[in-house]
Amino acid sequence: MNEIKIFSPATVANVSCGFDVLGFCLDTIGDEMVIRKTDKKGIHITRIEGYDLPFEAENNVAGVSALALFEDAQPDYGFEIEIYKNIKPGSGIGSSSASAVGSVFGMNELLGQPYNKTQLTNFAMKGEALASQCEHADNIAPAIFGGFTLVKSVAPLEVLQLPTPKDLFAVIIHPQIEVKTSESRAILPKQIPLQDAITQWSNVGSLVHALHTSDYKLLSRSLTDVVVEPHRSKLIPHFDVIRQTALDNGALGCGISGSGPSIFNLCYGHRNAKSVAKAIKKVYSKTGIPFVVYVSKINTEGVKIIG
Amino acid sequence: MNEIKIFSPATVANVSCGFDVLGFCLDTIGDEMVIRKTDKKGIHITRIEGYDLPFEAENNVAGVSALALFEDAQPDYGFEIEIYKNIKPGSGIGSSSASAVGSVFGMNELLGQPYNKTQLTNFAMKGEALASQCEHADNIAPAIFGGFTLVKSVAPLEVLQLPTPKDLFAVIIHPQIEVKTSESRAILPKQIPLQDAITQWSNVGSLVHALHTSDYKLLSRSLTDVVVEPHRSKLIPHFDVIRQTALDNGALGCGISGSGPSIFNLCYGHRNAKSVAKAIKKVYSKTGIPFVVYVSKINTEGVKIIG
Repeated sequence: MNEIKIFSPATVANVSCGFDVLGFCLDTIGDEMVIRKTDKKGIHITRIEGYDLPFEAENNVAGVSALALFEDAQPDYGFEIEIYKNIKPGSGIGSSSASAVGSVFGMNELLGQPYNKTQLTNFAMKGEALASQCEHADNIAPAIFGGFTLVKSVAPLEVLQLPTPKDLFAVIIHPQIEVKTSESRAILPKQIPLQDAITQWSNVGSLVHALHTSDYKLLSRSLTDVVVEPHRSKLIPHFDVIRQTALDNGALGCGISGSGPSIFNLCYGHRNAKSVAKAIKKVYSKTGIPFVVYVSKINTEGVKIIG
Repeated sequence: MNEIKIFSPATVANVSCGFDVLGFCLDTIGDEMVIRKTDKKGIHITRIEGYDLPFEAENNVAGVSALALFEDAQPDYGFEIEIYKNIKPGSGIGSSSASAVGSVFGMNELLGQPYNKTQLTNFAMKGEALASQCEHADNIAPAIFGGFTLVKSVAPLEVLQLPTPKDLFAVIIHPQIEVKTSESRAILPKQIPLQDAITQWSNVGSLVHALHTSDYKLLSRSLTDVVVEPHRSKLIPHFDVIRQTALDNGALGCGISGSGPSIFNLCYGHRNAKSVAKAIKKVYSKTGIPFVVYVSKINTEGVKIIG
């Protein structure tokens, strides 16, 4: 095999209570990439469509993660990468992670799968670091492992695969505004009240329990964020209206996707997800802010070969 | 049925990472109580053995929880309570909770079980509040439900029953020193670093996952407390020596039981629990501080009828 086409999915990090550790994988939104073996050594990005991104490997998220794997594997050939970007950079649904994951996943396949998923996550984190200035895995892990993941620790890297209840669907709304990652980081307090922390870890524990027991009502009661959302939601226009609309229409929960501006909703069943999407669209249309809405089942497979 | 004898177990609250929300139930340590219907209305404590505690119901933990249930049920008879106390008050293994739980569990049986476990927990919390000045359920919930519990919220009360891996044993060491609850509360910071909180909720999530998957190694890696233990361990002489000894002898984890001074260890299998107990005894004997060591399987049944 000399060439492979892959689908690298969008992801939702944090999942309300699980700031910096929880994430899940989306199904209908993602980038496509073609990875090709070449006689010329090194990593060469030969085509980028969708968004204007740098071609130099060392300045491109997909390139940096590819270089990390390449330097470790030291094959006697090189790789060309074509990127067909569908996930808008800065949307808050793991655009850079999808790029970082896609190249290393594709290269691993062409190399005969020498690396496991945790190792691929480590390589992809190098790419992610280019975009976010620090090594995070909360978007990368769900893109690679699929379903819900918990990043137990980053150094050493340990990713837990959590179960995904089968009737769970996500609705994403992406208001097309820019929220700078630096601003969304800076707005967070360095210290938090112990009492809020207790509430948060109680919810993380019950969310994990809810996933294991497919208890959708408990999942709903666990999707609460008393630590990060009160600060970051200020950066997202009409966040409270979206949430109220989603909950009024039967969503299990609503929160900020990653550092925003996208907002995720979790729903029981495809039918409910579609009505929540419809209601949100109706309300957000009135704001005058351009937006996109996606409905997706939870993707339990993660990044995959499509050709 | 006019009289019942019950066993009300000791419990471990917090379980390292789960401050204020997690707990588990012990098997070989607990109080015995006799509850008896009487023509005379009200709650009357007629016998207390083991420790010197007040006989007036309104000043006794078992009496206060009994009164809370009694006032709600309004039966046309009363109850006598005999308390055979084995758990030393102030030991950190749920002495007051055992008393508070025993009376309401016994009365509920004699009344024909009108209340469910969550309602009993609510009554018992009134008794616990007499001892600790605030309504906590992290010792009461495991005593009533058995096994591992997560108190998702106190108001409204919501208790989650977590699975108990079958080969899990606990070793408790109780150094016979006094740690005032007020002091162990006062030593805690009101604010904690966000980064520590993230570490803590990552561990709570992975501990719950480990219990669901009977993953003893993950359980071991999750039994870490970066928030409370660094402060409270100072109040327990030679805590670090105990922990090091336990881990060197194969314990899965070691932490402060409740607000101390008792220390709990979790072990894989009875044989390992016995060697950990032996090693701890040997080390602590050298300190000159009187102590007791218990070995117990995790009690998945909770409070129970024994006669």
